[in-house]
Amino acid sequence: MLNEQLIMEMKERVFEANLALPESGLVKLTWGNVSEINREAGVIVIKPSGVPYCTMKASDMVVTDLAGELLEAGMKPSSDLATHVELYKAFEGVNAVVHTHSKNAVMWAQAGREIPAYGTTHADTFYGMVPCTRQLTAEEVASAYEVETGKVIIETFKKGGIDPIAVPGVLVYGHGPFTWGATPQKAVENSIVLDEIAEMACVTEVVNDAVPPIPQYLLDKHYFRKHGVNAYYGQY
Amino acid sequence: MLNEQLIMEMKERVFEANLALPESGLVKLTWGNVSEINREAGVIVIKPSGVPYCTMKASDMVVTDLAGELLEAGMKPSSDLATHVELYKAFEGVNAVVHTHSKNAVMWAQAGREIPAYGTTHADTFYGMVPCTRQLTAEEVASAYEVETGKVIIETFKKGGIDPIAVPGVLVYGHGPFTWGATPQKAVENSIVLDEIAEMACVTEVVNDAVPPIPQYLLDKHYFRKHGVNAYYGQY
Amino acid sequence: MLNEQLIMEMKERVFEANLALPESGLVKLTWGNVSEINREAGVIVIKPSGVPYCTMKASDMVVTDLAGELLEAGMKPSSDLATHVELYKAFEGVNAVVHTHSKNAVMWAQAGREIPAYGTTHADTFYGMVPCTRQLTAEEVASAYEVETGKVIIETFKKGGIDPIAVPGVLVYGHGPFTWGATPQKAVENSIVLDEIAEMACVTEVVNDAVPPIPQYLLDKHYFRKHGVNAYYGQY
Amino acid sequence: MLNEQLIMEMKERVFEANLALPESGLVKLTWGNVSEINREAGVIVIKPSGVPYCTMKASDMVVTDLAGELLEAGMKPSSDLATHVELYKAFEGVNAVVHTHSKNAVMWAQAGREIPAYGTTHADTFYGMVPCTRQLTAEEVASAYEVETGKVIIETFKKGGIDPIAVPGVLVYGHGPFTWGATPQKAVENSIVLDEIAEMACVTEVVNDAVPPIPQYLLDKHYFRKHGVNAYYGQY
Repeated sequence: MLNEQLIMEMKERVFEANLALPESGLVKLTWGNVSEINREAGVIVIKPSGVPYCTMKASDMVVTDLAGELLEAGMKPSSDLATHVELYKAFEGVNAVVHTHSKNAVMWAQAGREIPAYGTTHADTFYGMVPCTRQLTAEEVASAYEVETGKVIIETFKKGGIDPIAVPGVLVYGHGPFTWGATPQKAVENSIVLDEIAEMACVTEVVNDAVPPIPQYLLDKHYFRKHGVNAYYGQY
Repeated sequence: MLNEQLIMEMKERVFEANLALPESGLVKLTWGNVSEINREAGVIVIKPSGVPYCTMKASDMVVTDLAGELLEAGMKPSSDLATHVELYKAFEGVNAVVHTHSKNAVMWAQAGREIPAYGTTHADTFYGMVPCTRQLTAEEVASAYEVETGKVIIETFKKGGIDPIAVPGVLVYGHGPFTWGATPQKAVENSIVLDEIAEMACVTEVVNDAVPPIPQYLLDKHYFRKHGVNAYYGQY
Repeated sequence: MLNEQLIMEMKERVFEANLALPESGLVKLTWGNVSEINREAGVIVIKPSGVPYCTMKASDMVVTDLAGELLEAGMKPSSDLATHVELYKAFEGVNAVVHTHSKNAVMWAQAGREIPAYGTTHADTFYGMVPCTRQLTAEEVASAYEVETGKVIIETFKKGGIDPIAVPGVLVYGHGPFTWGATPQKAVENSIVLDEIAEMACVTEVVNDAVPPIPQYLLDKHYFRKHGVNAYYGQY
Repeated sequence: MLNEQLIMEMKERVFEANLALPESGLVKLTWGNVSEINREAGVIVIKPSGVPYCTMKASDMVVTDLAGELLEAGMKPSSDLATHVELYKAFEGVNAVVHTHSKNAVMWAQAGREIPAYGTTHADTFYGMVPCTRQLTAEEVASAYEVETGKVIIETFKKGGIDPIAVPGVLVYGHGPFTWGATPQKAVENSIVLDEIAEMACVTEVVNDAVPPIPQYLLDKHYFRKHGVNAYYGQY
């Protein structure tokens, strides 16, 4: 039996986080989705597929189990659900996932390039370059596209030795960004940052076509000023 | 005798779709127009020419027959009406046409280049590159400019073997975009998508000047995820 | 004796046109000014210098004679008044002048380049390229800077054989745009168009670095579709 | 004993100036901070660290002495406080400091380039190029990062013989902009101008890759039209 109170609160948070996407300019039409997982309760809550933000209600959010199987009658979940499920299975500590087609992140995904850490705005959130996956093969796309999208993200982090907690986002080649975080709000903030640093990085290269990434010691300083046991940014 | 109820509903839809152009940032001043056709009823409804969006009313929409001849006393129709008429004659299944001077689509039209399918944002709406017409000749411009604009669009689709239902938009060389769809709202959405992918494609090339279009299998996957009998995106 | 009613109406129009600059995104802080002339009445009305748009009132508009001498006690006029006066003296049929530092037009002015007519958006308002003045000399800047700014604009149109009615705007080298028109509203619209085509032209060259201007016959068609005795755009 | 009235007024001004950052589009999330100093009273008031703009109150502003030591119980100050303190110690006549990650200024900071004075929009506020600091060394970052950030700014102005009153802003290499002024409002305005001229300069180089800065006589004219004893811009 589902914990009604917990589900209702998750729906509310996921709903609010989904609304934050068009409000922050990251999403046009219905191009985005946010989900949240509660592993103990065994539930994932995600945006319904293709529903306009302006008519969507918190109660429209779709509830599934940890394998992405529907637990309630209601709307169809986002078609990207299977990608979210793969990420939750592989990335411990990640409680929320966001997918958008935000303009600047998509440009880098389409260009098939990782985003170098060109400055402290990047380093404050992403501890190192934001990786870009390899292109999916025809077989992967034909078989279980959304599952394989999740798998190629996980492969990218494993092969690159990247910690998904320290680098909470990725570009899927030819497609667009996924970000994640400890909460839906934090995952959305990471999408905002990713799009911003994508734009900054592009024009940085226009202004100086031979610019190197910032040195490791500055990356360390800014990341650990905000994250980890020695963080001293904010009110905690 | 005209079906008053049907006309009134068409006017309302065309009016709302025209208002959506400045609201979505696609149109400045009076640079845009939307029309809808009802082939059975024998009517086209289109925006009046050069009327500011802020003072325009649904009742100002202009009603013509399928050849673009006025059926009601009232305002002059958009000067691009003849282009709309040509498109309706040639493109079955198209019930609404939109013309704008949206910035990013115009840039590609002025550059005289088709927009390559660089990513899934493109593939979700346009099944392949968005074509750009050849330049109109002096004779075509001098004779019946707006009719010839329609004809060169149709020529572009015929010569290229392009299905206008699968690729619901075009760039007219040196001019700007036209899009279309099953409804005025859908045609406007296609204008929004076209402008967005035009911007994305431009910067994609800045970030990587040797990027190829996405492979056919990814184009197929994304287009048919949203369109056709096997579509599984959305709530239908 | 001044015609109070006429002055009040001019102040109201000039005030509204000045407010339209930040509203349309052309102007930040206090970077812009609009004036209107009535040659028969012998008056010019112009924005006061350096007054924030949010506190400005119609009654703050400054009234001068045709030489730019104050006719009323009150605020100091825009420091660019002398440029407006020169343009009114030289350009018959021009009743309003606008100066802004709108981003895209400034970029071309700073680049010292005229804006080629790359498309019909340009041709609908500007009958040919938008010229850029030569750089002012040290002597011109030192003597009567704002007067000389006006003179170099006039020189640009005379030497280039350009009709200021057909090309209602210019870029001042290293500085920014001036536009004009039959009314303050029309002059502001021309500033909106100028900034839009400046942006379009820039990215057009990024997308295709060998693009030529549109042919003369297309320029003619679009310009004369909207202007002159054979115009057929709009409701007149 | 603190002067309560003076502190309250400083808090109000600093609060308003901080709010102006997201309102003017310079700041996303919590990426910015404004402070004000009163040297006679021996106090600095600055934004608290990491507090969202939407919930922040004037009373949340943090009060410190001239060395940055807290004078009131309450929130933690912005983590950049030590940089502000260094600037106040070195730059007489500067009463307010602003730090942002505004997009266009960051792009130049990341590119490691000073912004050339390409036009009068620049010259109206910055009397010459906006400098970019050298990169901080690993030792400087490791020791007292925020203090060293202040010191490298001061070094940049000293070595370059630049007057911080005439050039009220700087780019910190790989990081972003700091601006300052006689009041919090003026310092924020300088941040707005800096971001605007950063964008203009970037695209100016795209439109003309061989453009020189404006000549000294034009820089002089525009700067001194607005600043100093012979200024004639505005209502004073």
